[in-house]
Amino acid sequence: VVKRKSFEKNQCPIARSLDLVGDWWTLLIIRDAFGGVRRFGDFQKHLGIAKNILSTRLKALVEHGILDVHFEVEGGHGEYRLTDKGQALLPVLVTLAQWGEEHTVWPSESSQLVDAKNLQPLRRIELVAQDGRVLTPTDIATKKPMRAHDDNESAA
Amino acid sequence: VVKRKSFEKNQCPIARSLDLVGDWWTLLIIRDAFGGVRRFGDFQKHLGIAKNILSTRLKALVEHGILDVHFEVEGGHGEYRLTDKGQALLPVLVTLAQWGEEHTVWPSESSQLVDAKNLQPLRRIELVAQDGRVLTPTDIATKKPMRAHDDNESAA
Repeated sequence: VVKRKSFEKNQCPIARSLDLVGDWWTLLIIRDAFGGVRRFGDFQKHLGIAKNILSTRLKALVEHGILDVHFEVEGGHGEYRLTDKGQALLPVLVTLAQWGEEHTVWPSESSQLVDAKNLQPLRRIELVAQDGRVLTPTDIATKKPMRAHDDNESAA
Repeated sequence: VVKRKSFEKNQCPIARSLDLVGDWWTLLIIRDAFGGVRRFGDFQKHLGIAKNILSTRLKALVEHGILDVHFEVEGGHGEYRLTDKGQALLPVLVTLAQWGEEHTVWPSESSQLVDAKNLQPLRRIELVAQDGRVLTPTDIATKKPMRAHDDNESAA
């Protein structure tokens, strides 16, 4: 794994999230875990990923409490499952899916995230204020901690 | 840049999105562009990123139509701005921010995405069906293209 800058203590929650899930393999592993993939060999086959890369990613996901691993039999196959913290990443995957559906070229056979009950697409995710207003990018700001050399907020 | 597998023609829209924005620098560049950063030197200073890495990422973002670049004066500084396609990534950043706020340790000074009107946090993003039901992970499925060796859908 390429060593990189850590964002673990970054003041921005986006950066802190990316510190844990900010590479494509990690998010694809999480996607597959949502899809019911449990075993090392199945992740490997499904993703076409090198063993060492998969191994590092799974280990980090377990360390960060996003997956946990169960062994049915001692020495047997481990089964990786999303924790509650991991399941809470589903909205990230759904926003990526909705953007991909709208802004990338659909291959002839594209999968889609749907409501399991009727196989209809989910409602498009909107950004909503506490009072229910739908927000556009210019309606959103970043509230920064007060520091001498910074403005307290800026347009997002 | 490390050469990697391309997901451009992947049947999964999440993979296709990650093909374009699936590394931490790219999403942080987009975050800063939402925050009003426009110039190469400002991205560099703000992110603490090496010039060659920033340069490659900006070029790719322009090529993929997520940023465009304007030159006020010929030969002068370029100004990078989010296109509509780029602005459509805001929900991805918001879901990452909300997950980070809830599931990573807040440093003493954490920034927050807020409603610019009253500096209140946004409503928590929910996954909602066409008929308005709030969906949990087990309510969501992946509709796959029909293929001989695949089930047509599976629980997400």
